[in-house]
Amino acid sequence: MDYKQHIKIVEDWPKEGIKFKDITPLMADGKAYKAAVDEIVTYAKEKEIDIVVGPEARGFIVGCPVSYALEIGFAPVRKEGKLPREVIKVDYGLEYGTNVLTIHKDAIKPGQRVLITDDLLATGGTIEATIKLVEELGGIVVGCAFLVELSYLDGKEKLKDYDVLTLMTY
Amino acid sequence: MDYKQHIKIVEDWPKEGIKFKDITPLMADGKAYKAAVDEIVTYAKEKEIDIVVGPEARGFIVGCPVSYALEIGFAPVRKEGKLPREVIKVDYGLEYGTNVLTIHKDAIKPGQRVLITDDLLATGGTIEATIKLVEELGGIVVGCAFLVELSYLDGKEKLKDYDVLTLMTY
Repeated sequence: MDYKQHIKIVEDWPKEGIKFKDITPLMADGKAYKAAVDEIVTYAKEKEIDIVVGPEARGFIVGCPVSYALEIGFAPVRKEGKLPREVIKVDYGLEYGTNVLTIHKDAIKPGQRVLITDDLLATGGTIEATIKLVEELGGIVVGCAFLVELSYLDGKEKLKDYDVLTLMTY
Repeated sequence: MDYKQHIKIVEDWPKEGIKFKDITPLMADGKAYKAAVDEIVTYAKEKEIDIVVGPEARGFIVGCPVSYALEIGFAPVRKEGKLPREVIKVDYGLEYGTNVLTIHKDAIKPGQRVLITDDLLATGGTIEATIKLVEELGGIVVGCAFLVELSYLDGKEKLKDYDVLTLMTY
């Protein structure tokens, strides 16, 4: 399927010079959204995953239907202060300052095969941080799946030790 | 299914006196998560919905798999500054101060039959704001579905003109 027809390029958002890839039109089209998720489901089956992990909020949009389709669990990665029980956390660098992501300490069992999902692979910082959380809990990251890859930001280099699926490349 | 066995009650979170209902153990159990979503899918079919709308981030966890299962669109409602194109917005009161929710102006077509999803019905403020956004775009709210209802906060009173499905009541 030509998914790119469902992506809107928004010029100068969130700031000047950025051509933002808006996935909401793809989600608005039920057939396109399902086809995209189903490609990730097929990939996840090949990888024999036990659980899906996604960072808020757009990682939920991709990962939750994959969990549902495979009847396996979903573990949310959230910003600090959002998860109510004992968490582990990781700091990661943004262009200005740092951000903190957390996961519940009991979200992953050691040895579980994990698929990480997000809408977009840009510099790879968020996914690298998510991988750290999963591995600290003893999970095995067997794949990372994204709707969109911004190849000019070279996020795949950060993920070179991992298997990566992307459905569209810009 | 006895979903409550998969809900963890977290005492005094996010502040003293609150018994927070944590849905992440339900999501971690693939069978329970799928069964819960499937109840909402059955409800959505009866209501002949055209599109699912959910507020970030936990509304995505419930609504996105429903969209996927029915092969219909999902429209995210997000905090201000998160959606990249033209939005409409609504202010709503919190205990202290106000919050703003937004939706893309083209997210709903007039006359579309809309299901609104979220994890939890508490005072109903978030859902009331979401309904306002949907109706301002001409959508018809034919149902609201939640995993958990806190009946002592009386959110159903705010939604008395709408059809509401909840899977668990505290």
